[in-house]
Amino acid sequence: MYEGIVQDLIDEFGRLPGIGPKSAQRITFHILQSPNFDVSHLALLLSEVRDKVRFCDICGNVSEQDHCSICRDPRRNNTLICVVEDAKDVSAIERTREFRGLYHVLGGAISPIAGIGPDDLRVTQLMQRLADGTVQEVILATNPNLEGEATATYLSRLLHSLEISVTRLASGLPVGGDLEYADEVTLGRAFEGRRSM
Amino acid sequence: MYEGIVQDLIDEFGRLPGIGPKSAQRITFHILQSPNFDVSHLALLLSEVRDKVRFCDICGNVSEQDHCSICRDPRRNNTLICVVEDAKDVSAIERTREFRGLYHVLGGAISPIAGIGPDDLRVTQLMQRLADGTVQEVILATNPNLEGEATATYLSRLLHSLEISVTRLASGLPVGGDLEYADEVTLGRAFEGRRSM
Repeated sequence: MYEGIVQDLIDEFGRLPGIGPKSAQRITFHILQSPNFDVSHLALLLSEVRDKVRFCDICGNVSEQDHCSICRDPRRNNTLICVVEDAKDVSAIERTREFRGLYHVLGGAISPIAGIGPDDLRVTQLMQRLADGTVQEVILATNPNLEGEATATYLSRLLHSLEISVTRLASGLPVGGDLEYADEVTLGRAFEGRRSM
Repeated sequence: MYEGIVQDLIDEFGRLPGIGPKSAQRITFHILQSPNFDVSHLALLLSEVRDKVRFCDICGNVSEQDHCSICRDPRRNNTLICVVEDAKDVSAIERTREFRGLYHVLGGAISPIAGIGPDDLRVTQLMQRLADGTVQEVILATNPNLEGEATATYLSRLLHSLEISVTRLASGLPVGGDLEYADEVTLGRAFEGRRSM
């Protein structure tokens, strides 16, 4: 609809997740019409991210070095590993400041529909990390959905033979939520997991 | 939350309109995790758009040359000018394929609250285009909101002295919409503008 590179840039933004044609157009015009927007900085960051950022050899988290900042940090509790699906989940858990152990990023979840099996995930690497007996507890923090639950069940069976405590994050009502609006499954889980007080 | 340039890129995407922190993170991880995503192409387009794209000397539309493709096209009806607020509106109207005249982009609308007056818009340039008597009709296609209506009213008064027909796009019920869900103002406009059939 536009001439040449304006439309090219709109198309390119439209390829990014969550950006539809209207948003892509809005972003492109924002860049065109804001003389203060530092285009070269964004362009440089894009190239640098591709060149410099990789995934931690140990846990699979994003990193600019062989090992990520969490795996490098000697203050982290190395007897505790939290298993997550994605590097984004590491960031979400870090924000809670509740967890001081290490992570293991699987790179997805078991999904027969999407054709993703245990061999497509970083399961072997997890088993290797557990081999020397340092780790005492594995917290399964995969998503509380079908694929995440299947992955957690698979891993808990796999880890059963090792002398390691395997735990799963609690499911229940979201804090600040309203009981009335909770779905049945969540409400059911909240009953199952009820605690004496 | 992330190390170095990953967070820098998330922040940079977060500065774009309509992209919140979550979307910015999602986009950055998409780029990180898709080896096929051509980062250098996006980086190049960003730089090229800033370097090469400017605004048409005549109408104010985006262009890679002094004059935009519409102003350069000899098949367009040069007795007809459609006045719009923004270059994005040109694209929206072009998609209808209903209009074969020329455009004039004001670069905004009169808004006392935002401190935008007629002098901040490309009004003088519009008057210069109308001076030689070629243009016979000016269609005011500013947005059907407070600022757009104020701008249309201002321009129609300004153009009153010239022997040019001044029209305004029709307001009414959106096609495919449901009368029940129309707001009162739109429904009122639809009554005002009713046509015999």
